[in-house]
Formats: sequence, structure tokens, C-alpha cells
Amino acid sequence: MVDYTLYYWPIAFRGQFIRAVLAHVGASWDEPGMDAIIDLKDAAPADQPVPHMGPPVLIDHAADVSLSQTPAILAYLGGKHGLLPGTPVGAALTHKIVCDADDVLYDMTLHNGAQMWTAESWAAYQPRLSRWMTIFEEMGCRHGMTEGSGYMLGTDTPGIADFTAHVLWGVMTDKFPTLRPMLDAAAPSIAGLCDRLGALPEQAKLRARTDAEFGDEWCSGQIEASLRAAIAETTTA
Amino acid sequence: MVDYTLYYWPIAFRGQFIRAVLAHVGASWDEPGMDAIIDLKDAAPADQPVPHMGPPVLIDHAADVSLSQTPAILAYLGGKHGLLPGTPVGAALTHKIVCDADDVLYDMTLHNGAQMWTAESWAAYQPRLSRWMTIFEEMGCRHGMTEGSGYMLGTDTPGIADFTAHVLWGVMTDKFPTLRPMLDAAAPSIAGLCDRLGALPEQAKLRARTDAEFGDEWCSGQIEASLRAAIAETTTA
Repeated sequence: MVDYTLYYWPIAFRGQFIRAVLAHVGASWDEPGMDAIIDLKDAAPADQPVPHMGPPVLIDHAADVSLSQTPAILAYLGGKHGLLPGTPVGAALTHKIVCDADDVLYDMTLHNGAQMWTAESWAAYQPRLSRWMTIFEEMGCRHGMTEGSGYMLGTDTPGIADFTAHVLWGVMTDKFPTLRPMLDAAAPSIAGLCDRLGALPEQAKLRARTDAEFGDEWCSGQIEASLRAAIAETTTA
Repeated sequence: MVDYTLYYWPIAFRGQFIRAVLAHVGASWDEPGMDAIIDLKDAAPADQPVPHMGPPVLIDHAADVSLSQTPAILAYLGGKHGLLPGTPVGAALTHKIVCDADDVLYDMTLHNGAQMWTAESWAAYQPRLSRWMTIFEEMGCRHGMTEGSGYMLGTDTPGIADFTAHVLWGVMTDKFPTLRPMLDAAAPSIAGLCDRLGALPEQAKLRARTDAEFGDEWCSGQIEASLRAAIAETTTA
């Protein structure tokens, strides 16, 4: 019997935010296959464990709790496992960071693939992407993180905000290494945070496992193909 | 001296979720004009009260707290003013409902106007819009709301989840009355909840004030024009 079941596509993207936290707290979880995810997603809301439009869905078996929406799942896991700051303001700033990350994912996938990237649109997006990185850097610097040590909201141990920053920027620049110089320039402390968290044994193990299972896929599909083509065209131009 | 300052465009849309809660708790707030919002949004993250990409931004003057991101602001106000369920699961389900609402706003504006509606794309969207309504209905029915009485997450008084449902579906169908029959069919209990909350004196007063100030605008801009044109074309077809 596992602690949790995570319904999410076999890619990094939104699921990796949840996997990183589950790995950090030493929880066990399983992930049903594509057919089960699609069956769950397409079921009538009345027949779903939690009424939802799409994955991720996390089930906490011992607590008999089902949740959708990455920010809600992270808030729940953060509260349960002591990974949120102890003040209401700190918790709200964590929610803000998670929402920012979600906005970056929507940006990077042109709203889950509603449009496709071109070299031109990708080039035009670069200042905004860099600004997102700076926003994270400034949040970190303001709330306790200094280059080489400390965590994003000033706690002694990494919490939801830190793992969110790590998965957003660290995993993204792992999958798209040509974006790493922009991160180093716009958000050097965040880049360091990503490396430090990525080197934790549980995170290194998670990365090795998901790399082996999912390959280089980040958001997958046609939108990832168009993103990779636009990056390649821009980098070699 | 007001309790809060809200930086948001002079339209309903995301800002109305925050205004509805502020009005309910009897807080005073001011809203700076367009120039101030744009200056704040365009400032370097290091110079912003909270590093952010865009409004809404809420400043709590007494607490000296600045927050961006609608879900984070609502979580903060909910905690401060006792508008969240008292259990971690109830709070997480509230976050989920707020995230769902945010997804619907992105859907309805094609990611803040990244594309424009056509009669064809609007017609194709109708089953998904109806499903979103059903998801809210099922959440309400599962967590304490019954037709004609009760609130969404089973508390005795309306909370963040209820005001979120009210502003999403009630304000939307006020601004686009031809969508109301779909709400009545797909989510009759939510439609009733919207009406009951909209009839509260503070909410009626808020609506009168914002209608007078902002007119019929919902999300505004070219995307609202394309949405209104697509709805009109579909309705008269």
C-alpha cells in the first residue's frame, strides 16, 4: 500500500512539482498509466474522486483526500508535511510563488499548446522570461535567500517555495540547457538554489528515475517540438 | 487612511474576486488610477512592493503586507478574516476552487487575449464551459451546498469558495446574460448561490458602484469585443 497516488502524464512539467515534494518527505506513491488518467479525466464530475478538468490529481490514501490543481496540492502537502512558513504572510507568499510558476508554465506552452512557437515569437518572449526569473530572484533575496546559502522564504530548511523554484527553473534549464545562461544572469541565487536542491539525494534519485522513464520530455507534444525548434533556431542564428 | 489599496484595472474580471471579499468583511480600500497601475507593473522587480508581472496587487497597510496573484491574495484575506474552512482539507479545496476559477478566466479570454474568439471557436468551447459549471456544481453538492441553502464548503457562512463561485459565474452571467441558461441547466445550485450572495447588501452595493464606474466591461479590450461578437453570432444563428 502506497501513501499517495498521483495521476499525471508521464512527463516532468506540472507533475514534477508534486513528485519533488513527495520525494523530499519520503512518501511512497504510484502513478497509474495513460489509460487510467484519461478515464479519470473524461469521467463525469459526479464520478470523479475530486471534480476536475485535468490532471494532476493527488489521492492521499490514509486521509481519504483527493485534490486537483497543482497549487492546491502543494498547499495541502506543504501544510501536512511542515513545508510552509509558519506565518500567514509567509504562506501567502508561498502561494504567490506557486501561482507565478504556474503562469510561467502557461507562458512557456502558450496556454497548454493553444498556439505554436515560432523563432520570432520566441525571440519576442525573451525579455518577459528574463523578467520572470528576476521576479523569483528578488523574492528570494527579499525573503532570506542569499547566494550560496539559505532558502527562499527565510526558513532553515527548504519548503514548498524552494522546491517550486527548483522544479520550475532547475528542471526547465536541465531540459533546455541553452536557457541556463539567462538564469545565471537574471537569477544567480535561484540558479544556485536549483543546483543545491537538485543535488539532494532524494532529488537526484527522482531526477534519475524520471529521466529514465520520461526521457527528455518537459511539456511534451507539438508545443514542445515547436519550443525546441524555436530555441534551436534562435541559438544558432 | 484606508485598510487596503488594490491595484487593478478599472474592470470587474480578476479584481472583482478581491473587491467582493473586501466588501463582505467591511474593509475600506482605494484603487489607484491607470497611470499608477502601469507605473507599478513596469517598475523593476526590486522596486516593486511585491515583485510581480501584473495586477492585481493588494497592500494591507496595517500589516505592511503586499501580495500579488489573485489566489494568494484570496488565501491571505480568507485566513485573516476567517473565510476559510477550519480544516487543512477544506482550505486546500478552497484553493482548488480558486485555481479552477482562474483557469476559467484564462479559458474565456484565450489566455488574456493571446487569440481572438470566432463564432466557430466559441461554439466548440461550449461543452468545456458547461463542464466547468458542472465541476463547480458537483463541488458544491459534495461539500455542503444544497439548492436554496447552505454554502459551498459546508460552513454556516459564505467563505472564499462561495464568493469565488459567485464572482466567477454570477458576475459573468450578469455581464453576458445569454450565458445564464447554461448555468441554470448545468449548475442550478451554483446559480442559486450566485443570486443569494449577489443579493447581500454589501454585494449589491459593490455591484452598483462598479457597474457605475466600469460599465458593462468584464475582461475588456479586443478579447471582450471578440467574445461579445461570437456570443451574439451564436445566439442569433
